[in-house]
Amino acid sequence: MDQINKSKEFHKKHQGKIGIELKEKMETPDDLSLFYTPGMAYICQEIVKDKESAKIYTAKGRSIAMVCDGTAVLGFGDIGPEAAIPVLEGKSAVYKKFANLDAIPLCINKVGIEKTVDFCLALEASYSGIHLEDIKSPECFYILKKLQEKASVPVFHDDQHGTAVVVLAGLLNALKVTGREIEDTSIVINGAGAAGLATLEVLKEAGFKKLRILDSKGLICKEREDLNDFKKIALQYVEDSKFMKLEDAIKGTDVFIGLSVAKQVSKEYVRSMKKDPIIFALANPEPEIWPEEAIEAGAAVVATGRADYPNQVNNVVAFPGIFKGAIENKIKQFTNKMYVNAAKNLADFVKNPTRDQIIPSIFEEGVTKAVSSAILEDC
Amino acid sequence: MDQINKSKEFHKKHQGKIGIELKEKMETPDDLSLFYTPGMAYICQEIVKDKESAKIYTAKGRSIAMVCDGTAVLGFGDIGPEAAIPVLEGKSAVYKKFANLDAIPLCINKVGIEKTVDFCLALEASYSGIHLEDIKSPECFYILKKLQEKASVPVFHDDQHGTAVVVLAGLLNALKVTGREIEDTSIVINGAGAAGLATLEVLKEAGFKKLRILDSKGLICKEREDLNDFKKIALQYVEDSKFMKLEDAIKGTDVFIGLSVAKQVSKEYVRSMKKDPIIFALANPEPEIWPEEAIEAGAAVVATGRADYPNQVNNVVAFPGIFKGAIENKIKQFTNKMYVNAAKNLADFVKNPTRDQIIPSIFEEGVTKAVSSAILEDC
Repeated sequence: MDQINKSKEFHKKHQGKIGIELKEKMETPDDLSLFYTPGMAYICQEIVKDKESAKIYTAKGRSIAMVCDGTAVLGFGDIGPEAAIPVLEGKSAVYKKFANLDAIPLCINKVGIEKTVDFCLALEASYSGIHLEDIKSPECFYILKKLQEKASVPVFHDDQHGTAVVVLAGLLNALKVTGREIEDTSIVINGAGAAGLATLEVLKEAGFKKLRILDSKGLICKEREDLNDFKKIALQYVEDSKFMKLEDAIKGTDVFIGLSVAKQVSKEYVRSMKKDPIIFALANPEPEIWPEEAIEAGAAVVATGRADYPNQVNNVVAFPGIFKGAIENKIKQFTNKMYVNAAKNLADFVKNPTRDQIIPSIFEEGVTKAVSSAILEDC
Repeated sequence: MDQINKSKEFHKKHQGKIGIELKEKMETPDDLSLFYTPGMAYICQEIVKDKESAKIYTAKGRSIAMVCDGTAVLGFGDIGPEAAIPVLEGKSAVYKKFANLDAIPLCINKVGIEKTVDFCLALEASYSGIHLEDIKSPECFYILKKLQEKASVPVFHDDQHGTAVVVLAGLLNALKVTGREIEDTSIVINGAGAAGLATLEVLKEAGFKKLRILDSKGLICKEREDLNDFKKIALQYVEDSKFMKLEDAIKGTDVFIGLSVAKQVSKEYVRSMKKDPIIFALANPEPEIWPEEAIEAGAAVVATGRADYPNQVNNVVAFPGIFKGAIENKIKQFTNKMYVNAAKNLADFVKNPTRDQIIPSIFEEGVTKAVSSAILEDC
């Protein structure tokens, strides 16, 4: 059976991958009187006395709302909320397995920035956090910003900061492998969507100074007059430079981080970089340059989004620990500093990084803990 | 240990009563490739080709969104969304146990009619139905009406129609026990909130003709100038009458249905009714009149909302089957006709009704099926 049919059978067998379970048996009227009436009424009264006790007596204390409008799903783009459900169920399964959190898939219609914000805010009373997922840019930036201002629970957009954390973790180990220092390393990020702009900010927070970022038109720089609000903000994090295309922007840099689309980078581009360059070609499923080609052209370390090459950059090692930490450590909102610390812990988790191992596997015992312990208010 | 502490221990032990479960083990990278990437991507693509297939490949086909703003929780009133969580988790447990449905508790802030409607509509892509819970009247009427007009999935307000179904089921058996016919039976409903007005409509649909309903001020009748939109609609279902208080409205009737507050009915009131009257004193936790008193005053059948007396009128026998039927039979929206048929099936489930048994127990095999089989588009 090929992979596609195997996956279809797997998803069809149980009508999806996750479901509701009862925490105890409910077989008798006595059981029902605990689960239901009058048992639940006593708990309502407890929570009226102390709202915080909802975190003790109900699933609220371990539950997060995962909200997606289906506008930027995987590499498929705006495929709608129904088609996003398998992704959210997959992430919910990962949250349960690796962080023992209940993440509820809420795939909603494309209702725009204001109504998406209203939707999320309405849930803050009964969930301990909000995980935004697969919402296209620039809408995702506005939604996250408004929610961070208004919500009383931490809000996280995995496509932005989950990606940024894993990229930084892998990058820190790639620097070790190639003997580089943060302040001397020059980086070009190709792609100024959700992942690209968030990664830029988190790299800046981590101490990188020589940063460039490009969108589909070319380098984001002061002379551009077509930049949206969030690309304008990016100007403060990048080197001052005249406009150029990727072909020139990549020349002489140490690191290429591709968060865009396939086939953006040729061997010539890699050869034009500093010696032993680091290539993160993260476009999915086809990378900006195939690892074999990058290595032929002299790359010292190559990472992709794929499971069939070494160094898979996948958010799965980050998001379970990020919300686990947020809840355990009772943070109000996430900060870039927390993301940097989470990335450092993830990087340090790989005891002896090599060119083929810069990122730990989620199946290694302690990965979630390494991340969660970094998500602290006073870090 | 007293009941309250037992309930607190029960709810604290597992941090609530329900949670997310994985449908298979996820122990290896191969498992992860089915649950997560790339396995989920194939399913996204299937759903893009055919949106309906989301019901096969994801939990959508058995999932409903349970939405509550905490404004009318049990007998406690507007206690807020946090304090409503135990109720929604309890109902979710009942849905799972008795209908194998995944009902997701979504306790939201009190955001008003429009935003509550928007919240629910946003979810129609990824849920197979919407269960409204514990929203106060008259807001609940506007919300339900707007949703029934706009939503592509069936919408149900348990406090309205779940209650109406169980009341009608019990009433049909109480008529059998006391030898009454529907068209001759006169009924006074005390309470014109969510449950009262919905019960009135469903009783009318069932063929009852002699109907009266009172709110806290007295009889709802044409001369009243203080009626909201939904109480005005009720005028078409009731007997034409001059204004009176409950003391007079109850005189000479066959049935009292209390959906209001404690201690509304004295023994004198019961004695003023027809011989062998039927008393449904459903205020919670303290009924409009205690069963002992009602029986002393000549009541032939007494029902309450309590588990410690015979004839507990509790929605638990209705709502699991109502949504089970809605999904199995692919209905577009619920109708009063469906509710009447569900009530008839529930009543018929009690083979030999007596004054102490007019409603089946949810633990009897087949109750959910009896209800679900009545929820048909062409009934």
